[in-house]
Amino acid sequence: MSYTAPIKDMLFVLKELAGIDGVAKLPGFEEAGFDTAQAVLDESAKLCGEVLAPLNVEGDRNPSSWRDGVVTATPGFKDAFRQFAEGGWQGLQHPADYDGQGLPKLIATPCMEMLNASNLSFALCPLLTDGAIEALLTAGSEELKQRYVPKLISGEWTGTMNLTEPQAGSDLALVRTRAEPQGDGTYKISGTKIFITWGEHDMADNIVHLVLARTPDAPEGVKGISLFIVPKFLINDDGSLGARNDVHCVSIEHKLGIKASPTAVLQFGDHGGAIGYLVGEANRGLEYMFIMMNAARFGVGMQGIAVADRAYQKAAAYAKERVQSRPVDGSAKQAVSIIHHPDVRRMLASMRAMTEGARALAYVAAAHSDHAHHHPDEAQRARHQAIYEYLVPVVKGWSTEMVNEVASLGVQVHGGMGFIEETGAAQFYRDARILAIYEGTTAIQANDLVGRKTLRDNGAVAKALIAEIAGTVEALAQIDGAAAASMKAGLEKGVHALSNVIDFVIANAKRDPNAVFAGSVPYLKLAGIVLCGWQMARALIVAHRDRADDPAFHDTKIAIAQFYAEHILAQAAGIEASVVSADSRHGVLALGEDQF
Amino acid sequence: MSYTAPIKDMLFVLKELAGIDGVAKLPGFEEAGFDTAQAVLDESAKLCGEVLAPLNVEGDRNPSSWRDGVVTATPGFKDAFRQFAEGGWQGLQHPADYDGQGLPKLIATPCMEMLNASNLSFALCPLLTDGAIEALLTAGSEELKQRYVPKLISGEWTGTMNLTEPQAGSDLALVRTRAEPQGDGTYKISGTKIFITWGEHDMADNIVHLVLARTPDAPEGVKGISLFIVPKFLINDDGSLGARNDVHCVSIEHKLGIKASPTAVLQFGDHGGAIGYLVGEANRGLEYMFIMMNAARFGVGMQGIAVADRAYQKAAAYAKERVQSRPVDGSAKQAVSIIHHPDVRRMLASMRAMTEGARALAYVAAAHSDHAHHHPDEAQRARHQAIYEYLVPVVKGWSTEMVNEVASLGVQVHGGMGFIEETGAAQFYRDARILAIYEGTTAIQANDLVGRKTLRDNGAVAKALIAEIAGTVEALAQIDGAAAASMKAGLEKGVHALSNVIDFVIANAKRDPNAVFAGSVPYLKLAGIVLCGWQMARALIVAHRDRADDPAFHDTKIAIAQFYAEHILAQAAGIEASVVSADSRHGVLALGEDQF
Repeated sequence: MSYTAPIKDMLFVLKELAGIDGVAKLPGFEEAGFDTAQAVLDESAKLCGEVLAPLNVEGDRNPSSWRDGVVTATPGFKDAFRQFAEGGWQGLQHPADYDGQGLPKLIATPCMEMLNASNLSFALCPLLTDGAIEALLTAGSEELKQRYVPKLISGEWTGTMNLTEPQAGSDLALVRTRAEPQGDGTYKISGTKIFITWGEHDMADNIVHLVLARTPDAPEGVKGISLFIVPKFLINDDGSLGARNDVHCVSIEHKLGIKASPTAVLQFGDHGGAIGYLVGEANRGLEYMFIMMNAARFGVGMQGIAVADRAYQKAAAYAKERVQSRPVDGSAKQAVSIIHHPDVRRMLASMRAMTEGARALAYVAAAHSDHAHHHPDEAQRARHQAIYEYLVPVVKGWSTEMVNEVASLGVQVHGGMGFIEETGAAQFYRDARILAIYEGTTAIQANDLVGRKTLRDNGAVAKALIAEIAGTVEALAQIDGAAAASMKAGLEKGVHALSNVIDFVIANAKRDPNAVFAGSVPYLKLAGIVLCGWQMARALIVAHRDRADDPAFHDTKIAIAQFYAEHILAQAAGIEASVVSADSRHGVLALGEDQF
Repeated sequence: MSYTAPIKDMLFVLKELAGIDGVAKLPGFEEAGFDTAQAVLDESAKLCGEVLAPLNVEGDRNPSSWRDGVVTATPGFKDAFRQFAEGGWQGLQHPADYDGQGLPKLIATPCMEMLNASNLSFALCPLLTDGAIEALLTAGSEELKQRYVPKLISGEWTGTMNLTEPQAGSDLALVRTRAEPQGDGTYKISGTKIFITWGEHDMADNIVHLVLARTPDAPEGVKGISLFIVPKFLINDDGSLGARNDVHCVSIEHKLGIKASPTAVLQFGDHGGAIGYLVGEANRGLEYMFIMMNAARFGVGMQGIAVADRAYQKAAAYAKERVQSRPVDGSAKQAVSIIHHPDVRRMLASMRAMTEGARALAYVAAAHSDHAHHHPDEAQRARHQAIYEYLVPVVKGWSTEMVNEVASLGVQVHGGMGFIEETGAAQFYRDARILAIYEGTTAIQANDLVGRKTLRDNGAVAKALIAEIAGTVEALAQIDGAAAASMKAGLEKGVHALSNVIDFVIANAKRDPNAVFAGSVPYLKLAGIVLCGWQMARALIVAHRDRADDPAFHDTKIAIAQFYAEHILAQAAGIEASVVSADSRHGVLALGEDQF
């Protein structure tokens, strides 16, 4: 059940695909080049492999527990969180002004991958804290920032995001939690929030809840939602902890997976009112929440990649060890380890190809985010920001869908043992299943991709990416060999399909919105397949160039890229067909509710 | 959490696609026409909906438990099993000579679907008992048959299949359990068997274990395996129960799903030797086991269809009830039930299309089995048997792979609630995951499809089916409308892809077996997609013809068939590309073990 961070592949992607040298040229990141990345990744791998990974099974067997409002984390988690906090890991990508390390997102991202691969339930606590920090840095007053951010970065306190209510899940317009102004600048918050990850626990001294609520005079719908900060313990003027605030955990959920991570039902204001402080301006809560949600969505995409890699590692190890059946090619008279059977190899290659492709795309996205924030030229910042924003729903949506398939293949490689909980493959399958749901389901990501990310700019960013991919197709034509030929053919067909789908979306969004949105998730998956395939193609070109330096590593890259082209990119045309066939005048879109 | 058997669709398939009128013309089945089917299905639906379905959640929360070798089933299961037995359901398709009902497999199959949909864990006990009955009827002496079969059919006793050992899963050549002849015609059996479903329990008076073992002088490998019957309690000459035999359950597994069904580790002969009786001839055990396994494999395919339908029913009910977000087409100012959102509709239609397609193919296969056993003409029997045998790995492999996707979509439709165990959608996701593993993994089914079912007859059966599909494509060309046009295009492309893959398999099996077997699972999935699509096309033709009789029902059939064509059949060309691109000289087949 061990986890070994795939540092070699991570560094390959940082250097060759995401351009860490370019990031290190940005103002403020001069010290954050390849060598720094290597040193940071090595340290992160130690903590994750030695401290967090061994606790992953324990968290599943002995989940967080609730008693009389008190939530106790799995034994070992509190100590591990101390080590995480003391190592400065929470502040990795946050500004030095608030005691963070100020490193690029590009270096923080592989560390985030390791954290989630080693222990998904544990990693959710820092992930939500990151979200709270982002929201405060973006929208909070200097006073709020000074009061909360350093304590969040130090790990003395942790953060949460309180959006969902029983009637308001994907649809935040239905939020009902109330915030009554008290005349002294504070508010009294009352209402019920559900699905609050790490909403109550004993790993830190205080918990800083960021809460969406409505003031009495707020307009209806999403334009009347404000963002409040509601600490579990109030903060005295000297920064010490004061009275217990009126926010209480009334229960935690019994879930399919991520059992160590307590999912709280929080009751605000049942005993006189929870004191809250407005963050930024009233009625702009959704906008602020989107800032932290974009960070969190990227993070959840990384979770998918992380669990996929761990599931792959486990399956590959089992396939090398388990001996069963003679080879089909007659090359041995005795049973061999199952990695020699072609279908096991197909499964492992599928897992690895999807994982590596998604990793590369996510790291490339992280580099765009760094350029978007640090590039000296405003136009360049805007360009990188637009690309990053296009990529976020793809990284979130595709990585979390693919991990369900990868984790399922991981179970399958183990045969009957995969179904036995003690083996551990089933935990990845269960844990992973939340990822395509929380922080916005795949459909919500796909709506974002269609609406804000494609229609709003009339496909400009998407088409710019398509033009870049066409350049990679041309570069592939210059390379000999079956792998490059397969990749050229696959990527060319893939980008053609993606281009047609984008044209369909733009042409039909007004005329037949139901048809377009019926194809939104397939469009997202197609974008994921093609954009990740593009990264695999770029990796293939580099591996071909540098092959002599390290033939075993580069040949594997080439083989996995070829597999990606022949098995994953090959799905593109079928997805295109399913999107462009939609027409709300007939078929399932025209059926009555009672015909289902 | 209720379950309503989809009797209308079942009867439509029985009548229009699987040809129950034809089955009722076979000798011995004269009474088993449409009216009988309807009456039997109605009774089965009552038992399953009222007695078994409500116990499904209880089985998950309060699984079978082990204590000192005694296994106690979930509260309520024992009573339910009595009702099942007393209703005569165990004997549905078994011969009247042994107190069965002697009904066609075509009528037993929808009943089997209901049983598994209502309670998968429970249904495994009758499924394994069916396997034991089949093996005894095929290979047992008349004495063994008379002694055991009526008691199994009455439900006084149940049966098990003991194949797997720790080192022998997919590879039965590695079986080590020993059988020492005692000179009196009996054997002493010793060894350890694992993964024995309902291997120990308290629902019946006796358990009849069918066990693979080796005699001392047996040849190595699969040709030295014999089949033994080892009852938990020995049988006295008068048929009453005698001494406890030396077979003991030393533990049961802690599993991802089907928790109510005890998965036993059985120890044979630790206390002096378990008495066993040879079934049929020595060293022909694998052959006999395959007979019961073929029945069991078909049954497991039905389990996939059953769980898929129940997951669909639950998701559709939730989608009609859950109100969230305004419609994307602006047709309402308020939030609507989510079934009005195009992506939810896409998910529900995917679930339903795959389920209905798989159901139709399985019932068609069942009718072939009936003709294979009862047709007066030997050549016809052989033809139907060959088709049935081709279809078994497809029904098993495809239905159990598709249910993983369907159950996952079922979770997704529920959003965050899908991840909460109390909702129930997660149980289907967990329960279903065993189906593509037990009774032969999908890879094992695919090996069977490639080897015994395609290469052995040089593709004759496969090509005969392809010719029949071509006839359906022509019939579609005569029908107006977008649905028929989509189906014609989709089925034509699909059957073209399948035909190419079969040609590839036949052309390359000797030259490059690794390449062919790397594509075996994709071939199986393609066969599933196309053969089920064929049934959807036939359903569309019938629905078009009979539309005026019941427009709501037939329009739904047409819409789901169109969806199948545009979303599921659309995947065919991509799968073909992945199969025919394989070449063991390069790519992942050529990588060394340490490159994974």
